[in-house]
Amino acid sequence: MSFINDDFLLHNDVAKRLYHDYASTLPIIDYHCHISPKDIYEDRKYSNLYELWLEADHYKWRLMRNHGVDEYYITGDAEPFEKFKAFVASLSMAIGNPLYHWCHLELKRYFDYDGILNEDNALKVWNLANEKLKYLSARKIIEMSNVYLIGTTDDPVDDLYYHARLKEDNTFKTIVIPTFRPDNILNIEKDSWIEYAKKLGNISDLASLKDVLLRRMDHFAAMGCKSADHGLNIIEYADFDEDVVNEIIKRRLDGYQLSKEEIIMYKSCLLKFCAKQYKLKNWVMQLHFNCLRDPNTRMYQLLNKDTGFDTIDIHDSSYGLKKLLDSLYQDDSLCKMIIYSLDKNDDLFIDALIGSFQYPNVRGYLQHGCAWWFNDHKKGIIEHLTNLASVNILGDFVGMLTDSRSFLSYTRHEYFRRILCNYIGEMVVSGEYPDDDNSLKKLVLNICFYNAYEYFDLKEG
Amino acid sequence: MSFINDDFLLHNDVAKRLYHDYASTLPIIDYHCHISPKDIYEDRKYSNLYELWLEADHYKWRLMRNHGVDEYYITGDAEPFEKFKAFVASLSMAIGNPLYHWCHLELKRYFDYDGILNEDNALKVWNLANEKLKYLSARKIIEMSNVYLIGTTDDPVDDLYYHARLKEDNTFKTIVIPTFRPDNILNIEKDSWIEYAKKLGNISDLASLKDVLLRRMDHFAAMGCKSADHGLNIIEYADFDEDVVNEIIKRRLDGYQLSKEEIIMYKSCLLKFCAKQYKLKNWVMQLHFNCLRDPNTRMYQLLNKDTGFDTIDIHDSSYGLKKLLDSLYQDDSLCKMIIYSLDKNDDLFIDALIGSFQYPNVRGYLQHGCAWWFNDHKKGIIEHLTNLASVNILGDFVGMLTDSRSFLSYTRHEYFRRILCNYIGEMVVSGEYPDDDNSLKKLVLNICFYNAYEYFDLKEG
Amino acid sequence: MSFINDDFLLHNDVAKRLYHDYASTLPIIDYHCHISPKDIYEDRKYSNLYELWLEADHYKWRLMRNHGVDEYYITGDAEPFEKFKAFVASLSMAIGNPLYHWCHLELKRYFDYDGILNEDNALKVWNLANEKLKYLSARKIIEMSNVYLIGTTDDPVDDLYYHARLKEDNTFKTIVIPTFRPDNILNIEKDSWIEYAKKLGNISDLASLKDVLLRRMDHFAAMGCKSADHGLNIIEYADFDEDVVNEIIKRRLDGYQLSKEEIIMYKSCLLKFCAKQYKLKNWVMQLHFNCLRDPNTRMYQLLNKDTGFDTIDIHDSSYGLKKLLDSLYQDDSLCKMIIYSLDKNDDLFIDALIGSFQYPNVRGYLQHGCAWWFNDHKKGIIEHLTNLASVNILGDFVGMLTDSRSFLSYTRHEYFRRILCNYIGEMVVSGEYPDDDNSLKKLVLNICFYNAYEYFDLKEG
Repeated sequence: MSFINDDFLLHNDVAKRLYHDYASTLPIIDYHCHISPKDIYEDRKYSNLYELWLEADHYKWRLMRNHGVDEYYITGDAEPFEKFKAFVASLSMAIGNPLYHWCHLELKRYFDYDGILNEDNALKVWNLANEKLKYLSARKIIEMSNVYLIGTTDDPVDDLYYHARLKEDNTFKTIVIPTFRPDNILNIEKDSWIEYAKKLGNISDLASLKDVLLRRMDHFAAMGCKSADHGLNIIEYADFDEDVVNEIIKRRLDGYQLSKEEIIMYKSCLLKFCAKQYKLKNWVMQLHFNCLRDPNTRMYQLLNKDTGFDTIDIHDSSYGLKKLLDSLYQDDSLCKMIIYSLDKNDDLFIDALIGSFQYPNVRGYLQHGCAWWFNDHKKGIIEHLTNLASVNILGDFVGMLTDSRSFLSYTRHEYFRRILCNYIGEMVVSGEYPDDDNSLKKLVLNICFYNAYEYFDLKEG
Repeated sequence: MSFINDDFLLHNDVAKRLYHDYASTLPIIDYHCHISPKDIYEDRKYSNLYELWLEADHYKWRLMRNHGVDEYYITGDAEPFEKFKAFVASLSMAIGNPLYHWCHLELKRYFDYDGILNEDNALKVWNLANEKLKYLSARKIIEMSNVYLIGTTDDPVDDLYYHARLKEDNTFKTIVIPTFRPDNILNIEKDSWIEYAKKLGNISDLASLKDVLLRRMDHFAAMGCKSADHGLNIIEYADFDEDVVNEIIKRRLDGYQLSKEEIIMYKSCLLKFCAKQYKLKNWVMQLHFNCLRDPNTRMYQLLNKDTGFDTIDIHDSSYGLKKLLDSLYQDDSLCKMIIYSLDKNDDLFIDALIGSFQYPNVRGYLQHGCAWWFNDHKKGIIEHLTNLASVNILGDFVGMLTDSRSFLSYTRHEYFRRILCNYIGEMVVSGEYPDDDNSLKKLVLNICFYNAYEYFDLKEG
Repeated sequence: MSFINDDFLLHNDVAKRLYHDYASTLPIIDYHCHISPKDIYEDRKYSNLYELWLEADHYKWRLMRNHGVDEYYITGDAEPFEKFKAFVASLSMAIGNPLYHWCHLELKRYFDYDGILNEDNALKVWNLANEKLKYLSARKIIEMSNVYLIGTTDDPVDDLYYHARLKEDNTFKTIVIPTFRPDNILNIEKDSWIEYAKKLGNISDLASLKDVLLRRMDHFAAMGCKSADHGLNIIEYADFDEDVVNEIIKRRLDGYQLSKEEIIMYKSCLLKFCAKQYKLKNWVMQLHFNCLRDPNTRMYQLLNKDTGFDTIDIHDSSYGLKKLLDSLYQDDSLCKMIIYSLDKNDDLFIDALIGSFQYPNVRGYLQHGCAWWFNDHKKGIIEHLTNLASVNILGDFVGMLTDSRSFLSYTRHEYFRRILCNYIGEMVVSGEYPDDDNSLKKLVLNICFYNAYEYFDLKEG
């Protein structure tokens, strides 16, 4: 039996039934990822497995660094196959790491290879995959993956040129929409903020800033945008006076440094403004926090950002988050929101907190986002599901996303669906939920597809 | 086989033997709950399942809000059956939520219904339950549940009228005793404190405050009280001078606001005074913390407190808790204490900390209270038991309580006992504890009944 | 079948194969413990089980205190057998506690007793063990345990007399080396610091302090030292100026108290100096934190330190740890490091953080140390392994240590190995890792022995 067989991760009959009859054939809504719309539009091709797997995947780079691989074989000048071999050697010892499963799932689904990848057969797999790559491309992979919608991640300054082209292109069925990610204008403490603000538009005060943001949101909406995404290290909230925030912006534009209190007031003001606009547009606001960016100064100076050095942070965002939600609720400005913390210790806090701020007529108006990044593995997914189920309603969960920069990572949806079906199946076979096919089918279809379909308002899409 | 069958949650032969032979027939000591002594005394009846299930159960309200149900069907003017249907629709998708199990256990034990509750049969269950309710009442339910003792939760100002009546009533075998909950006099920072202090007694300074509290404790003791309960958001402790606290009280009575330091000193003084008195009375002090009350201001203004908006808080109480225990230990004032945090991240800290402050001659003088409120589900209970067992002595644990406002929730003791027996049984069948009936019987009897019986000093009753 | 049978904790065929074929016969590298080199050199003998089990084991003392045993039977004047009986009574109710397993493993491996220890047979076991003790001794136990290397824990002032004697002694095959533990010179805030500094050497400023430490490190190196160990309550880091630190040291030597900022600067300076030297010496730096020492003042005054009152602390060391690592990395001074927190909530943070600061050419240059002290139980070990595997590379883990003061605790390596083999075996039988004997053998051999052998640079001896 091959390692990735039909029943991979499915350990009981109910799980197998649910996965094979319902989950496996559902299209994928990948509402948050980092793939390039240009690559999709131009239907990028790959000359070898290195380009697809290792050229830009910081998950794999980290794994190699943990294994003591020299940077020469990671981001350095080694030959592609040498880098591949170094990666394979690292992977072989990574029992229990999701990369072990993802890689084998990708080899099976896109390269029809169902053996094990190890140092002995690295060359064989390399040749086999490179041969198959002649017939693969970005669009081909997306089609093979049955992807209904891709939500990319885009800066407000982006002209969304490739999204416009993809919108016009009738030959490609998958919907590709942008996601509004205004981190750069939020991060007023950064040196680059002044320059960024100029790039964004003619900003001289709070009113003009709002005006510019509104116009960018409208442009994103015209390209089909359904969601915004905010990456915050920590969520802090303070009550603010708009006149004070106006002065803060003007002083910052004049090059002055701000106090910590001023920074928090500015961010609170902007987050509230954004949330209110998202609500008017029926957008979903995604809040990601507790990620520590670029902790390793020397490697940041050498390799710049997004190169595999970011890590989990531990900050207490509980006060800021509850204050932000309360303030938005009081002003009737609370939009649909998916909350993600990279620190697993926040899980139950979030599962419970969202239950204190729900709005009627949307199932799970506030959501606890799926196990993400460092938590996107079997244990992390099961813990997320179990906590959510224990404190909230699992059947209303909007489900999985890849958060990935790789076109092959749609297998992470398969990974999630298998784990989900096994989790539900185990509850059934142990007598904790009835073996009622109507309910079970509804649960699986909703969590894997229809909840996201409704939540992101894709019917009108 | 019915969903709630004899072996619900029991997955091995040892578990079944332990549950059926020992746990299932033991009486219940529900030492901390929020049911109404008036309802017990007057033997309240219920005209329909709505009154019993939905009129006052904020667990169910939260579930409905998470499912997007409009407040009209929760706390609003919808018809009882319409509300019931909205609840059932929410429940169906709540796979893995303890409410799913609790509801079905309640339907089985009190209404003899062993089918599934779903939208298709909501009317059938509604009619069936309402028919049975003609023959049920508060006392009847308690009797059916084999309840040995109920510890209600009562404010020091309470005259305990119904406790006195119940004490005189020889027709009702279950012991009903009050629990002393002096939160209102602790919370000196609240606007309502001054008025409350007047209501409590003739308080003009620390001495008179102590005197009044002592007299209230004596009244509670006369009604059989064995325990006090303190609900704290965060545990903070500071050394204090009684003269300074005396001035703090007088200034507050004169309407002045206090500094944060003054508030902490006042609370530290009062907590120590209370603990010392509890020790003299052989009472148990229960400390509940990390609960965030009323985070949603708008809904609080609409619906007031205890309406399903409270949630888990994350505060670091580690410093305050260890300082409080150390200070009490130094003064030989440390009473028996059960410590509960709503934040699961505190679990192992508490399991270990209590081992540093035990007193001789009482097994588990300091206890880590059972998985509570948002943690009162299968995963939460198992994690609590496993952590406690790993770091402390499971066999000395005082066990379960309902913390409930509902007369049907005694099934939560059944739920706990089944999970406990399965947990112990799994250790036996996997060879981690010997299959020695003497020890196993002792473990089960003690955790389910006798530990609480001894700990709360019920022999002298 | 006896309680401790061949397949104790091994629940599938792969686990049994891996344990019996590979893990069980590997020698033990116990790179961090607290046993006495004097006892080894003098080959201490024990007149009864009390001396070996209860005279100095604060794990067992805590268990008895949790069970309500009077101090008279713990550290008091009761007869040895009376103390033993009190311990056995406590142990019987400690289902799920690692002491239950450790004690039975020890009885089986060193006393050939494979029954259950309980109150009924306490006397029988006492007599049997005492009879066997006639033929046991420190060295004999170490030999029976197949120990390759013991790393003791030693203060820089220690002359390492017994280490020198053991080095010369060709009759004893196990390597015994010291570990450099400079906590006393780090803890400048303590009253005892000035006196300690004098004892350590002729210290008048930063330069002389460094000089003295270097000379002590050289002495330790000459005795075979491969590692340093730092016990920190919290890790705090601040940038510092060496001139300022120099003044701080001089003022402290003159008896002045230091500010919190000064203390942090001093410690940051010293930690960096140490790490740099360790790197030059190819030593491993072990960082232990989140341990609360002596929280119970009254019992500390009665019994002094290391008597079973220390407990888990909750401090946020995330900022300090990442700053320390970043600073060392920037200076190219980052030595090999094993990081341990007593607070399990830090686990994933550490697993991820180390991946941001790895160095090439050493597998797992930074390591997350094994489940330790209050976490050294089945659940803690499995969670540590699972988190590490999910976020890092399990195959590069340096594995278990005892951290123990007892000569019998080598069974904790057996305990760890059984749990490890079962964990790996479960992944294989559930199809999450291929049943490839080459890879599995390599994983088991490496984690149980060879990773530590390489990491601690034992090839050169």
